[in-house]
Amino acid sequence: MLSKNKIKFIKSLDNKKTRDESGQFIIEGDKIVREFLKAGQIITMLVAQNKWTESLPRHVFQNIREIINVEYPELKKISSLRTPHNVLAVVEKTEFRIRWNEILNNLTLVLETIQDPGNLGTIIRTAGWFGVRNIICSPDSVDVFNQKVIQSSMGAILQVKVHYPDLHAFMDRVSESDLPVYGTYLDGKPVYESTLGPKGIILFGNESTGISSSLEKYITKKIKIPCFSDAAEGIDSLNVSMATAIICSEFRGRTRGYSK
Amino acid sequence: MLSKNKIKFIKSLDNKKTRDESGQFIIEGDKIVREFLKAGQIITMLVAQNKWTESLPRHVFQNIREIINVEYPELKKISSLRTPHNVLAVVEKTEFRIRWNEILNNLTLVLETIQDPGNLGTIIRTAGWFGVRNIICSPDSVDVFNQKVIQSSMGAILQVKVHYPDLHAFMDRVSESDLPVYGTYLDGKPVYESTLGPKGIILFGNESTGISSSLEKYITKKIKIPCFSDAAEGIDSLNVSMATAIICSEFRGRTRGYSK
Repeated sequence: MLSKNKIKFIKSLDNKKTRDESGQFIIEGDKIVREFLKAGQIITMLVAQNKWTESLPRHVFQNIREIINVEYPELKKISSLRTPHNVLAVVEKTEFRIRWNEILNNLTLVLETIQDPGNLGTIIRTAGWFGVRNIICSPDSVDVFNQKVIQSSMGAILQVKVHYPDLHAFMDRVSESDLPVYGTYLDGKPVYESTLGPKGIILFGNESTGISSSLEKYITKKIKIPCFSDAAEGIDSLNVSMATAIICSEFRGRTRGYSK
Repeated sequence: MLSKNKIKFIKSLDNKKTRDESGQFIIEGDKIVREFLKAGQIITMLVAQNKWTESLPRHVFQNIREIINVEYPELKKISSLRTPHNVLAVVEKTEFRIRWNEILNNLTLVLETIQDPGNLGTIIRTAGWFGVRNIICSPDSVDVFNQKVIQSSMGAILQVKVHYPDLHAFMDRVSESDLPVYGTYLDGKPVYESTLGPKGIILFGNESTGISSSLEKYITKKIKIPCFSDAAEGIDSLNVSMATAIICSEFRGRTRGYSK
């Protein structure tokens, strides 16, 4: 049975400020909760129907601090989904710093002012698929622990670390290395003709305003995804998560290092 | 001023049955309404603030059957968006048939049981970018005139025709031609190594269940987007709209026919 206070606390985690202060966030659904448990993440509160909890392997219970058995109507009360899943969990955030050896030896996505949670979640999922380990967002971007981000990342958040540093400080540090910095521009070189490597930074600007001029100095290679439409009007841009998927695929396909 | 009956009618267009019976659907927002007018589409009812309507070029008024001036609170009442735009329009559906000369000479996407409106909208937008003119959906897919589809297609619906034929009948006809039929499968050939051409059918299965076995016989080339993640768990699939974007990009990048 869920107390009023607990309902209040769970609902308060919709709010970034509360997530920051408590160091906790919410995940919902059978698949993602199992993945978090499998990855050894700490669940501070597991709210589920009895039969769901009973289906868990014994050894994961050591990472669950509190279990609250509820019936479906109660789950519905606390869920942010229209059709709630059979489990909701409050999870402890894992703190991590930027590991420069990972940045210097891999592909890293840098996103400027990304605001749509669905887009960020999908980008995380795609980045995970393409073996990208770090995503750098400007501090004014949507919070990765926003529930919509978590839901659309489909568990990839366990593999991909999302950081919110000062972008200029981050790019200053990058520019001290010989890491190529790719930026997507309307007048860039078609990505199909560009020299792409297994490591580097790929910078994506805001969907409406593009890469801000103060970041342009860091770009060493301007690229673009050419438009193939013969329509005069109506197709003026690609969704940023589509652009990310296409460019990640181009980078990875070019290096032919795939295994599966 | 909006009468109660009109509010009721506009709201009823949220419903596929009403859209089918009336042959009308809704678009919202400055950009998309202007694009529809520019493309010569018939608007049966334009609901907007006076100052917005006054900003329209004179010649488009011949395609607007009724103009209703409202204030923002009224727009809010009829809008399906959390933050309504300054204009909503009821548009007449354009009827079109499948043109086989287009299918036989271009790339066409076939989507089986696509259900998420945001995904379909994004796929339409991406298809438009890559010069795909036709998308074939199985009849149990989400309706293209669903408002969320329209909003996320960002006007690309003016360039890309979405059809809902019986998939088997459509594929039977395709199989009488020499058009290659690509299907995405877990055990397909990596798309980066596949021979891709400027025309053909690309079949995408449902996100959870994949391509149904009854359609497999039509596939002439099985392809896949390889996973580059070294994580054992957590990354088990790509979002279908991402897969579409990546595969369209691969097809178009390979033929190098881009102009912009």
